[in-house]
Amino acid sequence: MVHSGRHFLQIPGPTNVPERVLRAMSRPVIDHRGPEFAQLTTEILRALGPIFQTTGPVVVFPSSGTGGCEAALVNTLSPGDRLLVMETGWFSHIAWRHVAERLSLSVDYLAGSWRRGASASALEARLDADREHALKAVVVVHNETSTGATSRIASLRRVMNELRHPALLIVDTVSSLASIDYRHDEWEVDVTVTGSQKGLMLPPGLSLHAVSAKALAASKSSKFPKSYWDWQAMQKSNQSGFFPYTPATNLLYGLREAIDMLNEEGLANVFRRHARHAAATRAACRAWGLEVLCEEPEEHSNTLTAVVMPDGHSADRFRAVVLEQLDMSLGTGLGKLADQVFRIGHLGSFNDLMLAGTLSGVEMGLRMAGVPHRSGGVTAALEILAKGRSGGDA
Amino acid sequence: MVHSGRHFLQIPGPTNVPERVLRAMSRPVIDHRGPEFAQLTTEILRALGPIFQTTGPVVVFPSSGTGGCEAALVNTLSPGDRLLVMETGWFSHIAWRHVAERLSLSVDYLAGSWRRGASASALEARLDADREHALKAVVVVHNETSTGATSRIASLRRVMNELRHPALLIVDTVSSLASIDYRHDEWEVDVTVTGSQKGLMLPPGLSLHAVSAKALAASKSSKFPKSYWDWQAMQKSNQSGFFPYTPATNLLYGLREAIDMLNEEGLANVFRRHARHAAATRAACRAWGLEVLCEEPEEHSNTLTAVVMPDGHSADRFRAVVLEQLDMSLGTGLGKLADQVFRIGHLGSFNDLMLAGTLSGVEMGLRMAGVPHRSGGVTAALEILAKGRSGGDA
Amino acid sequence: MVHSGRHFLQIPGPTNVPERVLRAMSRPVIDHRGPEFAQLTTEILRALGPIFQTTGPVVVFPSSGTGGCEAALVNTLSPGDRLLVMETGWFSHIAWRHVAERLSLSVDYLAGSWRRGASASALEARLDADREHALKAVVVVHNETSTGATSRIASLRRVMNELRHPALLIVDTVSSLASIDYRHDEWEVDVTVTGSQKGLMLPPGLSLHAVSAKALAASKSSKFPKSYWDWQAMQKSNQSGFFPYTPATNLLYGLREAIDMLNEEGLANVFRRHARHAAATRAACRAWGLEVLCEEPEEHSNTLTAVVMPDGHSADRFRAVVLEQLDMSLGTGLGKLADQVFRIGHLGSFNDLMLAGTLSGVEMGLRMAGVPHRSGGVTAALEILAKGRSGGDA
Amino acid sequence: MVHSGRHFLQIPGPTNVPERVLRAMSRPVIDHRGPEFAQLTTEILRALGPIFQTTGPVVVFPSSGTGGCEAALVNTLSPGDRLLVMETGWFSHIAWRHVAERLSLSVDYLAGSWRRGASASALEARLDADREHALKAVVVVHNETSTGATSRIASLRRVMNELRHPALLIVDTVSSLASIDYRHDEWEVDVTVTGSQKGLMLPPGLSLHAVSAKALAASKSSKFPKSYWDWQAMQKSNQSGFFPYTPATNLLYGLREAIDMLNEEGLANVFRRHARHAAATRAACRAWGLEVLCEEPEEHSNTLTAVVMPDGHSADRFRAVVLEQLDMSLGTGLGKLADQVFRIGHLGSFNDLMLAGTLSGVEMGLRMAGVPHRSGGVTAALEILAKGRSGGDA
Repeated sequence: MVHSGRHFLQIPGPTNVPERVLRAMSRPVIDHRGPEFAQLTTEILRALGPIFQTTGPVVVFPSSGTGGCEAALVNTLSPGDRLLVMETGWFSHIAWRHVAERLSLSVDYLAGSWRRGASASALEARLDADREHALKAVVVVHNETSTGATSRIASLRRVMNELRHPALLIVDTVSSLASIDYRHDEWEVDVTVTGSQKGLMLPPGLSLHAVSAKALAASKSSKFPKSYWDWQAMQKSNQSGFFPYTPATNLLYGLREAIDMLNEEGLANVFRRHARHAAATRAACRAWGLEVLCEEPEEHSNTLTAVVMPDGHSADRFRAVVLEQLDMSLGTGLGKLADQVFRIGHLGSFNDLMLAGTLSGVEMGLRMAGVPHRSGGVTAALEILAKGRSGGDA
Repeated sequence: MVHSGRHFLQIPGPTNVPERVLRAMSRPVIDHRGPEFAQLTTEILRALGPIFQTTGPVVVFPSSGTGGCEAALVNTLSPGDRLLVMETGWFSHIAWRHVAERLSLSVDYLAGSWRRGASASALEARLDADREHALKAVVVVHNETSTGATSRIASLRRVMNELRHPALLIVDTVSSLASIDYRHDEWEVDVTVTGSQKGLMLPPGLSLHAVSAKALAASKSSKFPKSYWDWQAMQKSNQSGFFPYTPATNLLYGLREAIDMLNEEGLANVFRRHARHAAATRAACRAWGLEVLCEEPEEHSNTLTAVVMPDGHSADRFRAVVLEQLDMSLGTGLGKLADQVFRIGHLGSFNDLMLAGTLSGVEMGLRMAGVPHRSGGVTAALEILAKGRSGGDA
Repeated sequence: MVHSGRHFLQIPGPTNVPERVLRAMSRPVIDHRGPEFAQLTTEILRALGPIFQTTGPVVVFPSSGTGGCEAALVNTLSPGDRLLVMETGWFSHIAWRHVAERLSLSVDYLAGSWRRGASASALEARLDADREHALKAVVVVHNETSTGATSRIASLRRVMNELRHPALLIVDTVSSLASIDYRHDEWEVDVTVTGSQKGLMLPPGLSLHAVSAKALAASKSSKFPKSYWDWQAMQKSNQSGFFPYTPATNLLYGLREAIDMLNEEGLANVFRRHARHAAATRAACRAWGLEVLCEEPEEHSNTLTAVVMPDGHSADRFRAVVLEQLDMSLGTGLGKLADQVFRIGHLGSFNDLMLAGTLSGVEMGLRMAGVPHRSGGVTAALEILAKGRSGGDA
Repeated sequence: MVHSGRHFLQIPGPTNVPERVLRAMSRPVIDHRGPEFAQLTTEILRALGPIFQTTGPVVVFPSSGTGGCEAALVNTLSPGDRLLVMETGWFSHIAWRHVAERLSLSVDYLAGSWRRGASASALEARLDADREHALKAVVVVHNETSTGATSRIASLRRVMNELRHPALLIVDTVSSLASIDYRHDEWEVDVTVTGSQKGLMLPPGLSLHAVSAKALAASKSSKFPKSYWDWQAMQKSNQSGFFPYTPATNLLYGLREAIDMLNEEGLANVFRRHARHAAATRAACRAWGLEVLCEEPEEHSNTLTAVVMPDGHSADRFRAVVLEQLDMSLGTGLGKLADQVFRIGHLGSFNDLMLAGTLSGVEMGLRMAGVPHRSGGVTAALEILAKGRSGGDA
């Protein structure tokens, strides 16, 4: 079936890249050792601090987000080191536990629910038992892209501080940075990892770190053999505006443009926008009579919503109908959620009417796929969206 | 207010230009007298025939659609000639009556309702009275962009044939070609005029004619002084693949791409898509309790819907709220409809979810602007859209 | 033959559109009746004044440059009016004499050489004979694109002033504006006509006028039937930031960007750049032993050079070799110069190395096509280009 | 100084990205787990084989070329393994010896000249001495980007075969693949490494491997901790058309387009074009009286030429003059060649006239920077370029 109009890319990332960013990326490549490049690097690295809410250094790798996870581990730890990965869903498993194990690290995988964020009390119990401080790092996914549950990093940090546990705190913000309020410095995070293709509104191809002084210090004694991911070489080059190897120039063009766009809207407005859209999406689910996977209201993700399929119905068949008939991509269920949930991405370059179109696609898809539901989800969402807006100042 | 995501350009043209067409248009300019250009011209002129449903010649001008109206008149008529313009709304007035009068033609403006298409019986009466065949041309707007009413060209042609009236039939399809079924040859139209920025999915900047043998013959005795619009020079140049003056190369690149897209979808599918979207839009209006301007069901436009504002409410204030708060452009009321109607464009590169987003914007805007209405318009539209679609073949 | 790398479009227009302008043009279309559009129009019209060196109004049509010629005539004259067109080459004939005659104007075609600019003394003789001021307008091509000769407008104006002849002075700057110093106000020109596709670095599709108060006054008594080209309607709409019909939005985006680029470089620098490139091109011709068509040193065009082919050699065969083998488009000989000259465009978005590539293509093409010449043209050009440049400030 | 026209990016990579590739890359991102993506992956992986001249598997990483070097090592070797890196210049040092050492491999760095390719006899001596086969791999840079010397891989392979040495042969083709004839299968290379930003005409951001069956077997016993670079996971995902992590979608769009362009031109023609341009560049150097760094005629690189600066003159000052005055980027001298050579890139999307412009820039720059030389380099190059071309078939 040939489709007309725009595809709705409503997976929870990669997100819809704004035309403005695509245009910025279509500039000709420049000499990565020349003066114009040095200026580009310097501008970007300076502008990234406020996005992570840090005054410390930021590092940019030409790699996918998963590369950034690996890079965080090999810079701060040594082979055989023990670390705690808090289970939150598929990405705590695949991007952290699995990667750490492949790197011959010793992983304590702290069991957690896939229907909520990481548990501060579970962390407390585990760290309290670690009197000899065998755990060198704690890894948490801020926003579990597979479940739509957000972990409360500040509470986890508080637990670590109260127990005076010296482990590094490594946080995965791949699907939250620049969409959900996140405070690298205030929350004393040691390494924040993200990717280019979600809140930063770029195509995939860059991973980024914000790094604390403690993490930098740890990197000096790290014994992992590494070259590509090495912070030291990167920072040394960055100081003069360059990279230790050829950087992904055109994605950097796009990054500069995307940061400009975030600043024009204002980060606080960006966060509010995502919160409104998430609330409207959940209202739609309630109206349809479909269950939202995340069961803790305080931990609902603002960037995506995982929706539980009624028993006996295939989420993937539903998604296939929506893709084929309505030209919208929804996120699949991952790991043990396969075929049981579908995920609606509502992040990045997005607005009320794109969300309304998205939810309309879900409502039509449910009907077309014969999934039991009540209609009216879109109407419920529109009520949320219109609330608090008025025409008075137009 | 800084907006995120995509603007919804839902005026009844210019329409949303597909990224694919924008990309085609960003190719470097080529020599307009070279062999590659000759091939481009030949391909386009050949491909345009089926779009107009004609086997006769098609002419492309670098001008806006209004230029195409002027060009139709100066090629076929002579100063002082009398012609009949059938009133259907603002565009029958401004693009035809007004232009014809500026050109010193003598215009009979046949009164008609702004709530329906041109009347065959009124035409019959008028032509029947013109025994001496003073009228050299009859001008009809196929789809009145100001009202959302479509005229039945076949019936009008039948009247002319039955009366054996020799006037030329000139039809304006600016907002219908490539969106609503239109048959230049079958309906024996003499000049069909259109523009690039609606169903052809391009930015504005081209006007196009399909021309009958009778019109071509008439052009040979036309006494209008003209150069830029002259069919003879154009056709002579076109035969070798060129233009008598520098053509708008990049719009021609886009035109080739747009025709490819129409053919990939299939013109019959394109027409059906527009019909579905128009039906869904009217269903939304009914649910909201708002009146559709066009009052004849057989003549509802498939490309736009003009909606009557409840008494005492300003359509333009409503539109301003929607633009400022929801980043959607709706069409304004034109001429005597100013501030009394708003127009929803649902044509060109468009799909179900874009329509759902559009109608959601109208529903939210009505609420935000305090316009009395019932909610549920979007839900009603989704029912229409989902009907006849199933997940069975996904 | 499949070519690699960039095509060299070295016809004297359309010129190489800068990537930056192509990117600006690929923005989505906006509502041509909305507030963002009004701002675009206002910015552009304000910025165009300095480009024409005028403080008076500027008008922009969605048409090719030839449309702008027609528009200049129908706005200022009336059918049957007599005007003087000064012969300078193919474009004085085809774009002015021919168009004027098609428009039923009475044309005095003042014979002139195709190897130099318009003659002030010939003008003086002709105007002096016109005691009763039958001539309503004098038309001159500032830079004859077919010959590479520039006319000295200030001298022509002086003649008119000295004779107190009231004819309007209409000047065609299609291939000179924004490339060669041109002063609408200082030279008391009444209508300056140009197009988008040369010095303005856009694709074709816009024509532009700068208009004197005297021309505006003349337009009020013009009796030409007109609508599309009508200044009055245009100016009235422009005042509120709009156009009387749908404008060519994406070309206007590009125009704004192109003007920014001209201003960043500085118009005086732009003029100097074109002068250097023209001088270097002529030096190459001298070194090759080929004759430059323009025989008056004071009137050499800065935007193109027409080169005379040695007897017995076909310019068009040479051009075909260059196109096929070297992927460069050169300008053809027009009118009576057909097959006898080729034209090198060196205008618009251009620099020393692009010119060096261009001249290298000519030198290689001469060799490959067996055209008698001496080698060393490129070397001679490089000497001119390097002169006056030094590495001292690098 | 504000520049007009196109920048000449004549470093030996990144190369000038063709507009066609930039346009392909500006397509919207799609779901990396959907059916359209699977087709993209499959097409690309199939099309890459002929580019490497292999029927074996090809692997694509979202990383810079240096990442691909690291990836080749960690997939085939184990910590502490010994390997032989043949010195050819800066990149044999920085991208291989240095990286290998960072990865805790034991590197034998076989001394070699920076003025020629790797020596088969030196390799023979070294391998012959390695009777116990302590060396697990031999690493050679096919085309040393820092020197412009090409190594003869077939001869090196022959040495290994004659000695029946079982070491893997790893070849770096970052600046040669798709520009210089290179035969992964015929030369029995085990891992061929390349990047996207040179002969493949893309921006940087992808590294690629062709992998022999022997290398794949070796990877099964490799003990390097790894995740991101792991071939096994990559190949498993690739089989169904996907990637183990989010791939760099837009670069893959560009890659598909670039491969199409290479195939349209024909790889054999691409190789011939690069050879012609290299020969012309060396002819220019000879005419200028400047020394080409590579001293072995059989080993001159076809993709870049490193030129030795006359004693007492700074190559970097010369490059700065060329950048500032002529808007051309030339390659800097690297490592011990710093400030002593400059490098001219003549690879990728390139043609005769772009080369002529490039060499003209060098000739003008030499003059402007006061570097002693004879003029006439460009003329000498044009002679080479024109030779063997004729206008006969135009």
